[in-house]
Amino acid sequence: MTEQIWDCVIVGAGPAGLGAALYAARDRFKTVLLEKFAPGGQINTTDRIENYPGYANISGPDLTEKMLAQATAFGAELRSGAEVTALARRPDGLIEIACGKDKFTARVVVLAPGSSYRHLDVSGEEEFHNAGAGVSYCGTCDAPFFKGKTVIAVGGGNTSVEDTLHLCKFAAKVIMVHRRQEFRATKVLVEELMAKVNEPNSNLTLKLDSVLAEIKGAGKVEKAVIKNLKTQAQEEIGCDGVFIFIGMVPNTAFLKGFVELTDAGFIRCEPAYLRTKIPGVFAAGDCRTGAAMQLVTAVADGVNAAMWMKQYLRDPAWWNSKPE
Amino acid sequence: MTEQIWDCVIVGAGPAGLGAALYAARDRFKTVLLEKFAPGGQINTTDRIENYPGYANISGPDLTEKMLAQATAFGAELRSGAEVTALARRPDGLIEIACGKDKFTARVVVLAPGSSYRHLDVSGEEEFHNAGAGVSYCGTCDAPFFKGKTVIAVGGGNTSVEDTLHLCKFAAKVIMVHRRQEFRATKVLVEELMAKVNEPNSNLTLKLDSVLAEIKGAGKVEKAVIKNLKTQAQEEIGCDGVFIFIGMVPNTAFLKGFVELTDAGFIRCEPAYLRTKIPGVFAAGDCRTGAAMQLVTAVADGVNAAMWMKQYLRDPAWWNSKPE
Repeated sequence: MTEQIWDCVIVGAGPAGLGAALYAARDRFKTVLLEKFAPGGQINTTDRIENYPGYANISGPDLTEKMLAQATAFGAELRSGAEVTALARRPDGLIEIACGKDKFTARVVVLAPGSSYRHLDVSGEEEFHNAGAGVSYCGTCDAPFFKGKTVIAVGGGNTSVEDTLHLCKFAAKVIMVHRRQEFRATKVLVEELMAKVNEPNSNLTLKLDSVLAEIKGAGKVEKAVIKNLKTQAQEEIGCDGVFIFIGMVPNTAFLKGFVELTDAGFIRCEPAYLRTKIPGVFAAGDCRTGAAMQLVTAVADGVNAAMWMKQYLRDPAWWNSKPE
Repeated sequence: MTEQIWDCVIVGAGPAGLGAALYAARDRFKTVLLEKFAPGGQINTTDRIENYPGYANISGPDLTEKMLAQATAFGAELRSGAEVTALARRPDGLIEIACGKDKFTARVVVLAPGSSYRHLDVSGEEEFHNAGAGVSYCGTCDAPFFKGKTVIAVGGGNTSVEDTLHLCKFAAKVIMVHRRQEFRATKVLVEELMAKVNEPNSNLTLKLDSVLAEIKGAGKVEKAVIKNLKTQAQEEIGCDGVFIFIGMVPNTAFLKGFVELTDAGFIRCEPAYLRTKIPGVFAAGDCRTGAAMQLVTAVADGVNAAMWMKQYLRDPAWWNSKPE
C-alpha cells in the first residue's frame, strides 16, 4: 500500500486552523484539519462577537460554521474528535502525526491548538460562562458589553491589571479582587492601577487578600460572593458581570519535546514567517509566543502560515533564510 | 486655543486602516482615519472576494462598507479626500501630520497607505479591470475563478512565475508573456516553470520577447493582442482572462525621509510588533516589508498595531524592548 501524503496537516480547527485550511485548500493543496473536540475552539463559547472586522455582531458558532463551510468547499477535510498525541520529522523531511489509531504523513504541519483561559472553578462560573450571561475571560473582547454596569475583576498579573483598567473605561463600577496584597504585574501597570483607585470618585475599588468564592444568579450573573482570606469573612456583592483574568494555558502539552515551548507552554516561533525550529512546522494563533490573542489575528496567522508554506514546499532551504 | 490631540491617527482607510480603527475606537481611543481617496483601498476594485474567512462571497465595496460602519459605530472618524503630505515627530513625542491645510497631532500613528498593482497601461486594461470582467493582478486571489478557462499571464519576476504556476492548477490553458528571453525570477522558480512547460500535454506555453499590446472584448475579456518585440509580428489570442504580474508599488512616496523605506518603497518595520524606527509610528498592511499581501492579513496587521499601541501609550520605553 502506498503511503498517503498530505500537503498540509493542520492541528486544531479554531480560527487559526480554519484560516490556514481555507488558503491551503483554495491553493489546491491536499489539506486536513485534525480537531480534538469540535471546530471553532475558544469562540464556540461566545454568543456575541463584535470585533471581527466585517461582522458587526455574530455568534462564535455561526462564524465557525461559515469559516468551516468555506474551507471545506475548497476541499479541506475535517476530522473531529481527532486528538494528536505525537509528531516526528522523518529523515526524508516528511512529518508523521500520530492521532489515536491513525497516522498522518504531511509535507507541512500548521500547529494551531489554541489556548484556553484558566478557570477559577468556582460555583456559577460554568453556568454563566459567556459574556451574555455575565462571565468573561477577555477584557478587550467583552468590556464594551458592560457599559454603565457593575463588574467584578479577578486576578493580579499584567493582563489582569491592564484589562481591569480597560473595564474602568466602560463599567460604572469595577471591583477588583486579588488574593494577595502585592500585584505580580509590572511597576508601571500597578502605578496606573493605584492612580486610578485614588482618583476622586473613582469607579475602581480593590478587594485584596480576597478571592471570588461563588457566582450567583438566575439565568445571568447577579451576585458575587467574595471571601477575605485573612478574616474568612464573606460578603455578597451585586454585579452584572465577572471577569476572570488569571491567565491562559496553551494547549501544547502534546508538543513537548517536538517543538520548543516557553516555560508557560507557548510555541516559540519567529514572528516574520511563524516558523518553528522544525522545518515544515509552522505555529499559528493563540498557541504561539507574541500572539495578540484576538480572533482576526489568529485567523490571519493561519493564512500567513499557508502563504509561507508555499515558499518552503518550493525550496526547503527557505526555512533557514533570514526575513528581510 | 488648546491643541486637539488624537490618540491614534491612521493614514489610509483600506483593510489595514479599518482594522486598526475598529480596535482603537472600540478601546475608546480618539481615532481618525485619513484617506486620500475613498475608504476600501485595493479591494474596492474587486467584485468577488471568496478568501476573506467568514464570507464565502462578498464584493469589495460591500465589505468596506461593513468594516467602516463597524469602526465608526465605536467612534472612529473618517476624513475622505484627506491626503497626508508630511509627518514629523516633535521633541515632546507627539507626531504632527500635515494634511492639506489641516494639521493633526497624534500620540500614535498607524501607517496603512497600502500598495497599488503596477499597471501595463494597455488598451482594455482599465475597462476590464476586475476579475469578473477578466483582468486581475493577483493569482492567489483570483485563479480559482478561471477553472477550465484560457488565460494570459504577463511578467517575469518571482511573483509572476509563482502566480503563473498557480494559474496552471486551475486554467485549462495558460500563455505566459514575457518581454525578455531571461526571467528575473530565482533559479528554483525558473526551473519549476520550465519543468511545467516541458511536461507532456502541458497547459502552459511561453511567449518570450513579447508584450501584451491590447486587450479586447465586449463587456469582458475575449482576446489578447500579443506583439513579438523581435519580429514586430502581432497575433490575437482568444482568452477569458489576463493576469498582469508586473509588480506592486507601495503608496509611500510621502513617507520618504520620515520612516525607513526599502529600495522598492516598502516601509521597514519589525514583524513582531510592526514598529518602525520612529517611536509611536506603526506600519500595517501591504505597505510594509514582509506582508503576505492578503486581505485578512492586512486587516490583522491593523488590529495588531492597535493592540501593541496600548503597550507604547502605557510605557514609551516599550518601543525599544525586544520581542520574546
